[in-house]
Amino acid sequence: MPGSTDGLSVCGPLPAGRNKRLLTVEGHFFAHSRLEMFQVLKQDGQSKARLGRLTLSHGVVDTPAFMPVGTAATVKAMPHDYLESLDSQIILANTYHLYLRPGDERIARLGGLHKFMSWTRCIVTDSGGYQIFSQRDLISVSQEGARFKSHLDGSRHFFTPEKSMMVQQRLGADIMTVLDECIPYPSTHFEAAKSLELTLHWAERCKRSYSTQMSGRQALFGIVQGSVYPDLRQHAVERLQEIDFAGYAIGGLSVGEPKELMYEVTAQCGELLPEGFPRYLMGVGTPPDLLECVALGVDMFDCVLPTRNARNGYLFTSRGRLSIKNACYAEDVRPIDERCLCQVCRRFSRSYLRHLYMAGEIVSSVYNTLHNLHFYLDLMAKIRESIASQNFLEFKRNFLGEYCSEDETVRSRDISSI
Amino acid sequence: MPGSTDGLSVCGPLPAGRNKRLLTVEGHFFAHSRLEMFQVLKQDGQSKARLGRLTLSHGVVDTPAFMPVGTAATVKAMPHDYLESLDSQIILANTYHLYLRPGDERIARLGGLHKFMSWTRCIVTDSGGYQIFSQRDLISVSQEGARFKSHLDGSRHFFTPEKSMMVQQRLGADIMTVLDECIPYPSTHFEAAKSLELTLHWAERCKRSYSTQMSGRQALFGIVQGSVYPDLRQHAVERLQEIDFAGYAIGGLSVGEPKELMYEVTAQCGELLPEGFPRYLMGVGTPPDLLECVALGVDMFDCVLPTRNARNGYLFTSRGRLSIKNACYAEDVRPIDERCLCQVCRRFSRSYLRHLYMAGEIVSSVYNTLHNLHFYLDLMAKIRESIASQNFLEFKRNFLGEYCSEDETVRSRDISSI
Repeated sequence: MPGSTDGLSVCGPLPAGRNKRLLTVEGHFFAHSRLEMFQVLKQDGQSKARLGRLTLSHGVVDTPAFMPVGTAATVKAMPHDYLESLDSQIILANTYHLYLRPGDERIARLGGLHKFMSWTRCIVTDSGGYQIFSQRDLISVSQEGARFKSHLDGSRHFFTPEKSMMVQQRLGADIMTVLDECIPYPSTHFEAAKSLELTLHWAERCKRSYSTQMSGRQALFGIVQGSVYPDLRQHAVERLQEIDFAGYAIGGLSVGEPKELMYEVTAQCGELLPEGFPRYLMGVGTPPDLLECVALGVDMFDCVLPTRNARNGYLFTSRGRLSIKNACYAEDVRPIDERCLCQVCRRFSRSYLRHLYMAGEIVSSVYNTLHNLHFYLDLMAKIRESIASQNFLEFKRNFLGEYCSEDETVRSRDISSI
Repeated sequence: MPGSTDGLSVCGPLPAGRNKRLLTVEGHFFAHSRLEMFQVLKQDGQSKARLGRLTLSHGVVDTPAFMPVGTAATVKAMPHDYLESLDSQIILANTYHLYLRPGDERIARLGGLHKFMSWTRCIVTDSGGYQIFSQRDLISVSQEGARFKSHLDGSRHFFTPEKSMMVQQRLGADIMTVLDECIPYPSTHFEAAKSLELTLHWAERCKRSYSTQMSGRQALFGIVQGSVYPDLRQHAVERLQEIDFAGYAIGGLSVGEPKELMYEVTAQCGELLPEGFPRYLMGVGTPPDLLECVALGVDMFDCVLPTRNARNGYLFTSRGRLSIKNACYAEDVRPIDERCLCQVCRRFSRSYLRHLYMAGEIVSSVYNTLHNLHFYLDLMAKIRESIASQNFLEFKRNFLGEYCSEDETVRSRDISSI
């Protein structure tokens, strides 16, 4: 397994000319060098959970990490300085959205995404595939690429793996991801296998395009597909490792499959993926999902749940989710969560927040998003602390014991704005 | 003229039992006592501009002051801490809106408006008259009061002067205003005179209701009406002074009349109103309006222009107003205003702000509002500095020389959310 060791292992984008075998042999050589990208600092003794550190072009990301979704070069309803006050070290931006508006070439002319949006911390971009394959926009798929029409003006576009790489290079995020085909749940084994072959073919082309084009400032992650079929997921992991990426995303989940299947696939990928590389579970999930999947070895998450829920008046608390529009909060002077230390909970009552929501005030979205992102990022910080102090499973048990899980049927990744 | 002196003059709500003549005689007695509400600290030598200080229940307001409009217990798109960072000492809240939602009785049960919205600084409430008389909601007007229907659910309501006082008392703002009839421009002299008699009758009832009900924590302002007719305005000023208020608002302007008439009426009121009392010009205006009307002796302003313009992409700069949606800003890396020190101008480019506006992002409204309110509040601070250093007219001339005035046809006070 490349770069894998038994506790402290590291990996980075391969310097030109190095191959996988060389890294395997020399893994420890990179362990404390400036080239290292991912370090596992501590492995939980009772689960696959691990404390890690990603060192990217724009800074360090402590893992396990939650990445707020910043679709169109901003996290929705969240001014940058609020996000910074929450210690958000990395956000996700959507290649598809930025390609269409304001355009990747424009962003490149303006100095890249970081400079354009004046965000100095880390950014990951998805490949655009997820949005393209959201069906509404898709026209056709071939070995070559995917044809789709813009949700903004109906104009037609053609995305190839090379095109996705070029667009992401222009954006200049710290982490790029390969173009993958996203299929719905359920899909037959035949459909999933056929789609996976295309995805792996595209992954190879992305890597080739990346190797010949990239400066090295941007890390490239592969994406494991294969629906809910273990043999396909295994094949994907093996093939992607052969192609060799700086990290591995687990895609194709949170698309309507039962929760148990999502956990099963994640568990399998957590077992198969190399220890020394970051694992990124895409589009997941609820607070319990984060805990479960950290236990399965996941290092990075992105999800629209905290931000989209906020705009719809759903607020996360240590006891579960509450809907601020409920009449029972009309004269409730308590904060959203009495244990929460965010600036919203320190200042505002449920009654006031309900009023703002009912009145359709813009600040309702701002305050709700601030609270929800605080909840998510604070949860991740506590998870990291618990791994560091070797009581992760106890923390997880206590958290889940209090948290009233609801059926989070909200589709996780951001297609709402398409 | 009650409480009027030649430089340093003060006045406050009359202690029970005192009458106007007593205050006239004893004006200086209050000059440095704890009962004073308004102090003129410096009178400009070349205009009616004056530097003042209002001491209200929730703090001091330096005048001339601009009061951001916080219609529904929040300034639209502006989190409280941003507003505080701009040193906004006082905001205006709309009685009509709060009466309908969440309801004045509810706010009273929750401890009053300050506590409800967690705003510790000063608040002024209007009487509700302006919104009621915006025509769309009005059903009928009688000597007794005004009948209107709710824009929210069509329910019918009846506002009397006493009702407006009771609602405003429940809200508990630092400054309340009398219920007045607002008539459109143009109106005939006959219509305006008839309406003014009703307004003055209501003002008397408001004062009577106030005197018998109020604890003294809330100051009550009269409102001068009379359309654009000098004799009516003069009659209004005289009669309101007889009734005796803690301050005087100039209403019925910025309703579509030519700018020159607005300045003429303001000038007349500035001449007629007593020196020792704060003068509040309602619903005005553009940056040049503020300068002109300060020169005419106005101490307080409220206007939705900076906040509503912000949400529509119109941004104020030292050289005039710009529309951020214009294509020319698509790759403009400059800040909104190169001389502006607000946090938006220190961080973001026009290109990014244009993108956020075009993408319909919530933070577009937040950033734009932050900039515009900074522009307005910074202008007021500079006006105060210039009066203090006796170069107000020079400052005014320089500002207007640079500022490209546009035809601000936007109706100033907030009826958009009705």
